[in-house]
Amino acid sequence: MPIFKPIQESEAEGKVKEIYDEIKKVRKITAVPNFWKNIANDPKELERTWSSLNEIMKKGVLDPATKELIYVAVSITNGCEYCIKSHSLAAKKKGATEEMLKEMFSVVALANKNNKLVDSYQVEVDEIYK
Amino acid sequence: MPIFKPIQESEAEGKVKEIYDEIKKVRKITAVPNFWKNIANDPKELERTWSSLNEIMKKGVLDPATKELIYVAVSITNGCEYCIKSHSLAAKKKGATEEMLKEMFSVVALANKNNKLVDSYQVEVDEIYK
Amino acid sequence: MPIFKPIQESEAEGKVKEIYDEIKKVRKITAVPNFWKNIANDPKELERTWSSLNEIMKKGVLDPATKELIYVAVSITNGCEYCIKSHSLAAKKKGATEEMLKEMFSVVALANKNNKLVDSYQVEVDEIYK
Amino acid sequence: MPIFKPIQESEAEGKVKEIYDEIKKVRKITAVPNFWKNIANDPKELERTWSSLNEIMKKGVLDPATKELIYVAVSITNGCEYCIKSHSLAAKKKGATEEMLKEMFSVVALANKNNKLVDSYQVEVDEIYK
Amino acid sequence: MPIFKPIQESEAEGKVKEIYDEIKKVRKITAVPNFWKNIANDPKELERTWSSLNEIMKKGVLDPATKELIYVAVSITNGCEYCIKSHSLAAKKKGATEEMLKEMFSVVALANKNNKLVDSYQVEVDEIYK
Amino acid sequence: MPIFKPIQESEAEGKVKEIYDEIKKVRKITAVPNFWKNIANDPKELERTWSSLNEIMKKGVLDPATKELIYVAVSITNGCEYCIKSHSLAAKKKGATEEMLKEMFSVVALANKNNKLVDSYQVEVDEIYK
Repeated sequence: MPIFKPIQESEAEGKVKEIYDEIKKVRKITAVPNFWKNIANDPKELERTWSSLNEIMKKGVLDPATKELIYVAVSITNGCEYCIKSHSLAAKKKGATEEMLKEMFSVVALANKNNKLVDSYQVEVDEIYK
Repeated sequence: MPIFKPIQESEAEGKVKEIYDEIKKVRKITAVPNFWKNIANDPKELERTWSSLNEIMKKGVLDPATKELIYVAVSITNGCEYCIKSHSLAAKKKGATEEMLKEMFSVVALANKNNKLVDSYQVEVDEIYK
Repeated sequence: MPIFKPIQESEAEGKVKEIYDEIKKVRKITAVPNFWKNIANDPKELERTWSSLNEIMKKGVLDPATKELIYVAVSITNGCEYCIKSHSLAAKKKGATEEMLKEMFSVVALANKNNKLVDSYQVEVDEIYK
Repeated sequence: MPIFKPIQESEAEGKVKEIYDEIKKVRKITAVPNFWKNIANDPKELERTWSSLNEIMKKGVLDPATKELIYVAVSITNGCEYCIKSHSLAAKKKGATEEMLKEMFSVVALANKNNKLVDSYQVEVDEIYK
Repeated sequence: MPIFKPIQESEAEGKVKEIYDEIKKVRKITAVPNFWKNIANDPKELERTWSSLNEIMKKGVLDPATKELIYVAVSITNGCEYCIKSHSLAAKKKGATEEMLKEMFSVVALANKNNKLVDSYQVEVDEIYK
Repeated sequence: MPIFKPIQESEAEGKVKEIYDEIKKVRKITAVPNFWKNIANDPKELERTWSSLNEIMKKGVLDPATKELIYVAVSITNGCEYCIKSHSLAAKKKGATEEMLKEMFSVVALANKNNKLVDSYQVEVDEIYK
């Protein structure tokens, strides 16, 4: 059970309803996902989060699929099940193939391993990296 | 100070020397970075790490620059200074621009924030993500 | 399934029984929560944990509700479901309102985001903070 | 060395300069801290971060000092030196005493310990917490 | 639901089938655990992971049970349920007693707590530890 | 610089002085390490931490060197420099060899990698592990 009762679409009003409509339109989906229905308990956080997500995840010098892969890589490192599942799906919708996901998984595993080897041996930063 | 004395190039022998030479040749650098000189204290770990790094970070369905960006994204999430600095440089050498790095930074910050909103509200996984 | 069979109240003896009784009395609850029934497998850890919890979470210069909010903030950052759920409830019992919880959630999300921006850019500590 | 050259106050232009001025005015300080000078390399991230920080950290149902304590608690859990140092100072400026900081430290240590006991024993969530 | 459909034993071919057979033989088990059936979606990762696991977890100057205890300690710190459950069982099979597991749990809890006290107070490294 | 001025041995009084003397006696050292001088700012935390450290890290069914290796494994996973350096030294003093430390490093790196593969593929817990 979530900490707060999710705000259902039928209960949404004002700014929350507006954002719910936008989410469904932009994402081309027919139901608002739980993430948004939970944080709608705090309408300002909903607004901040939706607006920054749109701004950051849209096409830039990196394409949307690459951005989603990076998002999933972070979510794996943090062990966030909801985030891994929802953004893996988003990555695929935006053009990432299953092969891309699997290659990303191996990079994430390797980076986590090597990050810890650096901590184990207490490796000092080389002059050229400073 | 590192936990074990790094193995200098002049001290390297056998398999360690071979890998040092390969690192310099493949990377087109004239000095072996500290990471490798530290883990050379355990020649088998050196071999495993060098061989899996080569296998995983090479061009696949994802290009090498994208893989380095993902590597850095993980390293930021883990707070590993050495890894962030060395692999940001690697990303640039393999073609990532400064704009790409900055866009990746914003995705990493956003994902870390949203991962924690999911944990805060204890959002349940939607049926469509299962 | 937990790693070790929880020690039920009917099985508790000696020091474990004493602490179980104290937990119910201090907390004004009628059943011992799973956390305590699990760590009761190690009576010394049970004793240390119960005694330090009481000492640290009681009213000090910070009031008990604020301490619970801080406890939940840490638990969110670590992604510990049990801890988030049980201590959110504890926070409310000690006087934290739902609005307080939501404001805390936003601070936690923001701090996690900014912590990672600092790591991304490898920001150096200003002289005035040293 | 940071990843990108910090934008000095003398180099700031347009929106960046405006935010620098606002930071100094709101915070009543005479120099812009490194955090802002680093992320100014990405003016949109600077704007988003400054605007959400102001919105979230201002007085609400929680007072500003309590919010800073929560911010520091998260930063300790993530091991972010810059964040711990700068926001401990902010907490004190907003009225947190040294005793409050120390009590918060003990809560953070305790929560981190108990989070891991929950993971160790794989404690199941009690019905009453669901 | 996992991200990719696990590769069942009846579907395994070539290198994957070989490794499945080896896993069952070495571990003296009659069914391949889910971990391997999931990563078999990436046969090279399966091979790398199985080969490094065998190399690292076998008897060395540390005995296999101690290595499993260390593995579980890391998994608790990362909050990985699957890893905690499967490697606690492995530890027992290799000779770790329940008392050993419980003592390890207390060390893990203590280390997590003290790691955070170090971060809280920003303790400087003593000369003798450098 | 630490957050609070460390309490020097010459300034220590009452319970703090007593613990300082005990630390030096038990550890057979001539100077109190920074960790203790920092947390002495909170005499009750000093007392709790010293007493639980002694209780947990002493010989049990696990020997003191193994416990220190586990402590360091956790500290590497959390990236705590002070803790890695001071407890690696403690491990050696209690009989851990350099080979043992290196084997532990490889187990820690492997576990961190595999923990993330489990999260990547969202592996479900096998019935036999439940």
